Amino acid sequence: MDCVSNMTRSPMITEFYEIAAADGYFNSDKKDTVAYFDLFFRKAPDKGGFAIMAGLSQVIDYLKNIKFGSDDLEFLRGKGVSEEFLEYLKNFKFSCDVWAVPEGTPIFPNEPVIKVRGPFVQAQLIETALLMFINQQSLIATKANRLVRASHGTVVAEYGTRRAQGSSQAVFGARAAHIGGCSVTSGIIPEKEFGISGVSTMIHSWVQMFDSEYEAFCEYAKRYPDDCTVVVDTYDTIRSGIPNAIRAFNDVLVPMGKRPNSIRIDSGDITYLSKKARRMLDEAGFPDCDIMASNSLDEFLISDMVSQGARVDCFIVGERLITSASSPIFGGVYKLCAVERDGEIIPKINLSENVSKITIPSSKMLYRLFDMDSGKAIADVLTLEGESIDDSRPYVLFDPDYTWKRKEVENFVARPLLVKIFDNGECVYDEPGLEQIREYCSEQIDTLWDEVKRFENPHKYYVDLSKELWRIRNKLIEEHKGAIMIK
Amino acid sequence: MDCVSNMTRSPMITEFYEIAAADGYFNSDKKDTVAYFDLFFRKAPDKGGFAIMAGLSQVIDYLKNIKFGSDDLEFLRGKGVSEEFLEYLKNFKFSCDVWAVPEGTPIFPNEPVIKVRGPFVQAQLIETALLMFINQQSLIATKANRLVRASHGTVVAEYGTRRAQGSSQAVFGARAAHIGGCSVTSGIIPEKEFGISGVSTMIHSWVQMFDSEYEAFCEYAKRYPDDCTVVVDTYDTIRSGIPNAIRAFNDVLVPMGKRPNSIRIDSGDITYLSKKARRMLDEAGFPDCDIMASNSLDEFLISDMVSQGARVDCFIVGERLITSASSPIFGGVYKLCAVERDGEIIPKINLSENVSKITIPSSKMLYRLFDMDSGKAIADVLTLEGESIDDSRPYVLFDPDYTWKRKEVENFVARPLLVKIFDNGECVYDEPGLEQIREYCSEQIDTLWDEVKRFENPHKYYVDLSKELWRIRNKLIEEHKGAIMIK
Repeated sequence: MDCVSNMTRSPMITEFYEIAAADGYFNSDKKDTVAYFDLFFRKAPDKGGFAIMAGLSQVIDYLKNIKFGSDDLEFLRGKGVSEEFLEYLKNFKFSCDVWAVPEGTPIFPNEPVIKVRGPFVQAQLIETALLMFINQQSLIATKANRLVRASHGTVVAEYGTRRAQGSSQAVFGARAAHIGGCSVTSGIIPEKEFGISGVSTMIHSWVQMFDSEYEAFCEYAKRYPDDCTVVVDTYDTIRSGIPNAIRAFNDVLVPMGKRPNSIRIDSGDITYLSKKARRMLDEAGFPDCDIMASNSLDEFLISDMVSQGARVDCFIVGERLITSASSPIFGGVYKLCAVERDGEIIPKINLSENVSKITIPSSKMLYRLFDMDSGKAIADVLTLEGESIDDSRPYVLFDPDYTWKRKEVENFVARPLLVKIFDNGECVYDEPGLEQIREYCSEQIDTLWDEVKRFENPHKYYVDLSKELWRIRNKLIEEHKGAIMIK
Repeated sequence: MDCVSNMTRSPMITEFYEIAAADGYFNSDKKDTVAYFDLFFRKAPDKGGFAIMAGLSQVIDYLKNIKFGSDDLEFLRGKGVSEEFLEYLKNFKFSCDVWAVPEGTPIFPNEPVIKVRGPFVQAQLIETALLMFINQQSLIATKANRLVRASHGTVVAEYGTRRAQGSSQAVFGARAAHIGGCSVTSGIIPEKEFGISGVSTMIHSWVQMFDSEYEAFCEYAKRYPDDCTVVVDTYDTIRSGIPNAIRAFNDVLVPMGKRPNSIRIDSGDITYLSKKARRMLDEAGFPDCDIMASNSLDEFLISDMVSQGARVDCFIVGERLITSASSPIFGGVYKLCAVERDGEIIPKINLSENVSKITIPSSKMLYRLFDMDSGKAIADVLTLEGESIDDSRPYVLFDPDYTWKRKEVENFVARPLLVKIFDNGECVYDEPGLEQIREYCSEQIDTLWDEVKRFENPHKYYVDLSKELWRIRNKLIEEHKGAIMIK
């Protein structure tokens, strides 16, 4: 566990400008100002319709354990951090309120998935770590869910360790893949730490170590009669691998009263080879022997293979899952949206030079509206803190950019998505187990319309603002841009 | 240091099939067989002409510290690992020989960059970790070098922590980026652990926390008069950010006798804005104020900006560097290439269904041939162990696939690239420091022709086989494929 917890517990997983801003503010006359930050993302990976929230568990672990060591403080002293601030860090006690969308929830662009309220100094200091944990795992949970949707029920196995961008991703990426729907992992630590079922297959070098492929298969079957998977493409899948596998199954397993688990195909035209392999295995009396397929698979290849009738019982996905290769960045950001002054919430905005980077100001609530008949999610609505949505009456949704685009919904239930995680620095959240998160994810995916889930041109799910929130945002844009124009 | 070393020191960073193969072989009558493995890659990221070797330092740290804890052994017992093998793991003593290409060396497809010789059980067990460390860092060193080449001498800063695929990549990715040529980092741990210069800029929330942008800049300048970088795009770069920066510099820094460090532009058309900003700063008397640019940059955007005359003094690169976004997989593989039997080396091959996956058999040496006049690298040549290249005489290179493509070279020097790292399990390598590796990398890049370094359709650098090695490889292909054909 040390190996894993150390990856989430260093308060030094941060960047200089967080420290510089926190230190500078700490030494100003406003050092106790309470600030509100939102963590959100702007675009789903792979031009998808949504993402899957993951990484919260590591955020919680990190926030529970922020403790600067003496060597950390000494290092920061050498970087010019003020003595007053070093003293503060030495006695650091986390005191923020934190709300978050639970892991496994489908999430959409521009909505806060974590909300932090607390002293600016603290809320700023944790930015980098929060972003890294959420970006890291939401990326992989989202990709895993795409793979699982592409496989239409066929098991997807996570085999990414060797191509992971580091040990942290090998471990937490496997966790995220499980949340997104993968069933099993090749990694040892993910089973040891998180209880994800680990699976084994045969490695090519095993075959090469013996004088013949047949001998290699026989030796493996003798050693692993209850979990016998052989890799059949070392020399020639159809002419050598599968015939030798069948011989070894017959010569070793059958006399022991055992059955083979599977064969693995790791190269070549897998759709073609899998059909041929299926026929050969069936004819040889092994219709129960599964076929596993690997070789740089992703959701596009899997979709294609499924549509062509490939006879694969388990898709093994490595590098393109653990790096989310076709879209390897989860662009979570963390933005100041309000401060408190004399007990009042003052909304703050960041305009930037790109329209897509303009933030949504103020302290907010996030609701998901579900249709009562179908159970499907209709829209997400952001409101001001304290505003509620009366789901006993029709509610008018409108597009925040094209406000004439409106839709009246009725017969719905509005569920708040942000759950309180920390109260004044104390964790108040009862974390669900990993299997529970995985099931919850699967259930929540079922509440999305197919149009939102498809890969090509998915329907843009509504993430709208309440009238009051919309008004405040527009007012701030006008104020800032207006002030600039007339200066 | 705990945080970092724990990322490289778990013997459990592996996959089940490594353990299954090692256990199975350990319990066979051939358990002491000595095997040879090569670690190599098949294609450079981004269709580039080469990659940069990195990650060896972490491989060394891992190999020096393989020690299974009692909880590890207990876990493996529960997975059905044999008692004999558990006992072996409990008393594990690494006893392999390891050779490697030093970090910072340009490396090419299909050549061994690490070579392991030792008991099959051990050499197999370390596969996953070796691949992960080398894949992880060679990916980023290669990308960083592309960025540095694109910037034509302008400083490139690594700012990836928040978008890194986990804390391990935030830290080791920063290390690899430095090897590849990045100058500075935003991360704290990379400076603390590796001595890479850390830099700070201003964060948007700092601007938002104050009642006006001008006040925010003044307060920052007062706090950081010696390192004053302000971010100018929070509201409007040209009409608000830069004028306010100039006012604050004049009102706060100039009376103190200080000069501003830089302004940072984080959105908008950076080429256009940087030219305009340069003029405004020059006219205001701050020609020494640098301009830093950030916003999802990569080598393609930087090339473009440089060619359009952008006035940028530092390119800040985050997510697209730390994930190598346009090509996020470094496809290193680890393949058995020989075994020893009665003191003789028996070459082994893996044919697979894809021609590109056919391996190069036997225990090999790797030479780089440099032209004596220009100092440029001409070709790499793989030979059998013990074979030498006589560089006092002309040498005939030939393409291993199209053998009629030949080239006679003379007036060259042949330098062996594989250096002994471990001898019978003992580390015998004197590791260079990080700055030394970075300098060596830069020097070695200078030995490559521009044609190999360009981004579009780079020249395919020769990686050829000696006649003897070529003969053995072809013989093995014939034997295996022939045996299949006539069966």
